[in-house]
Amino acid sequence: MNVHGKPTRTIWLHPQNPAVVQIIDQRALPHAWVIEDLSTVEQVSTAIRDMHVRGAGLIGATAGFGMYLAAMEAAAIDNASDFFHEAGNRLKATRPTAVNLAWAVDRQLNAVAAASGPEEMAAIALSTAQSIADEDADACRRIGEHGVSLIEKISRSRGGAPVQILTHCNAGWLAFVDYGSATAPIYAAHDRGIPVHVWVDETRPRGQGSKLTAWELGQHGVPHTIIADNTGGHLMQHGMVDMVIVGTDRTTRTGDVANKIGTYLKALAARDNGVPFYVALPSSSFDWTMRDGLKEIPIEERGSEEVKYADGLAGGRHHEVLVAPADSRAANYGFDVTPSRLVSGLITERGICHATEQAILALYPEKK
Amino acid sequence: MNVHGKPTRTIWLHPQNPAVVQIIDQRALPHAWVIEDLSTVEQVSTAIRDMHVRGAGLIGATAGFGMYLAAMEAAAIDNASDFFHEAGNRLKATRPTAVNLAWAVDRQLNAVAAASGPEEMAAIALSTAQSIADEDADACRRIGEHGVSLIEKISRSRGGAPVQILTHCNAGWLAFVDYGSATAPIYAAHDRGIPVHVWVDETRPRGQGSKLTAWELGQHGVPHTIIADNTGGHLMQHGMVDMVIVGTDRTTRTGDVANKIGTYLKALAARDNGVPFYVALPSSSFDWTMRDGLKEIPIEERGSEEVKYADGLAGGRHHEVLVAPADSRAANYGFDVTPSRLVSGLITERGICHATEQAILALYPEKK
Repeated sequence: MNVHGKPTRTIWLHPQNPAVVQIIDQRALPHAWVIEDLSTVEQVSTAIRDMHVRGAGLIGATAGFGMYLAAMEAAAIDNASDFFHEAGNRLKATRPTAVNLAWAVDRQLNAVAAASGPEEMAAIALSTAQSIADEDADACRRIGEHGVSLIEKISRSRGGAPVQILTHCNAGWLAFVDYGSATAPIYAAHDRGIPVHVWVDETRPRGQGSKLTAWELGQHGVPHTIIADNTGGHLMQHGMVDMVIVGTDRTTRTGDVANKIGTYLKALAARDNGVPFYVALPSSSFDWTMRDGLKEIPIEERGSEEVKYADGLAGGRHHEVLVAPADSRAANYGFDVTPSRLVSGLITERGICHATEQAILALYPEKK
Repeated sequence: MNVHGKPTRTIWLHPQNPAVVQIIDQRALPHAWVIEDLSTVEQVSTAIRDMHVRGAGLIGATAGFGMYLAAMEAAAIDNASDFFHEAGNRLKATRPTAVNLAWAVDRQLNAVAAASGPEEMAAIALSTAQSIADEDADACRRIGEHGVSLIEKISRSRGGAPVQILTHCNAGWLAFVDYGSATAPIYAAHDRGIPVHVWVDETRPRGQGSKLTAWELGQHGVPHTIIADNTGGHLMQHGMVDMVIVGTDRTTRTGDVANKIGTYLKALAARDNGVPFYVALPSSSFDWTMRDGLKEIPIEERGSEEVKYADGLAGGRHHEVLVAPADSRAANYGFDVTPSRLVSGLITERGICHATEQAILALYPEKK
């Protein structure tokens, strides 16, 4: 999607130096635009672990390119194969729960297994890294192609007024290689001239909505308005939301959706007001082994300081400010589970389906 | 309730100087404890307008004491009656939508009407101000007496484990003269040795939960945990909330409840998980003229900077930090309306009733 008017991905090979991979240091957003050069697997590990990059799709793509850099480093030393496998283990350890990370590393390990020497190893690793990134972008693009039909249909009854879409957290292109999941139908609609307006939940405690989603929508020129997470219900009660689209960190084969904490509250409000509630996801976000999201999906608890502090810009400098009594406790659950009964449909790269096992398996018959 | 171990109200006459009224400058909470002296009606107007004090009950009590100070000032000049009436108008203009403010001013104007001279005027105004404050505290104390029975009942089935109560925003003693509305049953339970634990919604954008409710619970020794506003649904899904108690800015005669934005989302989650959802209110918060909260109660829109900024302490200094792109729009709706169908009961100073017109009027037969 566009940044400063120019089509941009979240990760790419340096245009002048193929031994360098470039990423956006997302920690600096929305206040600064920082491109970071990565030339060692150690730098890639730091970028993933310290969340310069985040989001399932982008973590996978970054790990893919990390293994390419590992192959380049390996070529310069004696025991190339050991170094390469060691690099894979190091990358996997950076965010142990990120499914796409281990998947990308293993794909690279398999791909280079047949390489006849260090140079072929690097060449295979580069083409595999590029495939991982391209496939991620392509899946998101297809989510957009399918999802835009839903927006188009609402738009036809709006007489030129923008379709009002609410989203939560960041399931945007910043979390993938391009397009995003929840944002893909929105970008597709905007690019086709269908008027849309997005209500962006700020998404406390980390503020991925106000810091990332609002920024990327603004850069691409999509009209949007940031709201406190408390606001969506009121908007829906007053007919100010036509549909909700969110992403997911993990969706069961029965259609239960784990996503950023607070998603469930918006699904309840959507149901209470007859607003359609859609979840956009590439098939890699399905967990085919799980049937009961509420009972089976583990919910990460994060540090309480994210709740007790807010961070942002004041006087040109970045500050973390304490917004609560210093001696009060805080709890920080990262995700919640929206039961499938509250989900109007799933938008996947293969098409749109109801959030039921039968409908999901009709799109993914190989998982039966 | 206790502050630094000492029973404290939110407004009182200076113990050594009866020409001075003292308040807590709540803007400094939770990071500093600032007592402010008020000795003129001008200072009282500033304190109400710039929100050194806030909350329906406390605004009314402060206006009452403001009129006492106006009477003292009036006694020193020629045209006492004109000055006194003028002071009333000035106070009413500080927060035009605060019902208790105009009510307290008018009560003072009526009370002093029969005064034979400036000294009697001041004496009547002081006793009226003290009555307004005492009646507010007494109504809240009685809300606590009634509401504690609900907590007690849950506690009996908990085998000594704390009763888990979720609240939103600040309907605590800081918003009244003492006890609070939503917090009154909680303080009553705690003071009787019934173990309670309070989940405190931070309540973005202004953070009244993390800044005020957490502080006052902590000062009184009530165990509590601050959570992002997104969290309550997840807690209820996992059986971690036994009841919700919130306050209200205005409740219709049919039981529709206007309260801080986000209350409706918690009511939906409570209903979806079979958690009782109670609203605590003194009878002054009923709007007897309204029947349909969603259609009739006006919802205040506040400045977008409250959403785009967060304020708190860093390096010992107070900062307002920008938490969103500088050029993104934000919207800031102050309240939402929870329909009566989602309310398990109303806790008033006269007792507990269902949120239906019939049940409300059974407690308030004079409003039939």
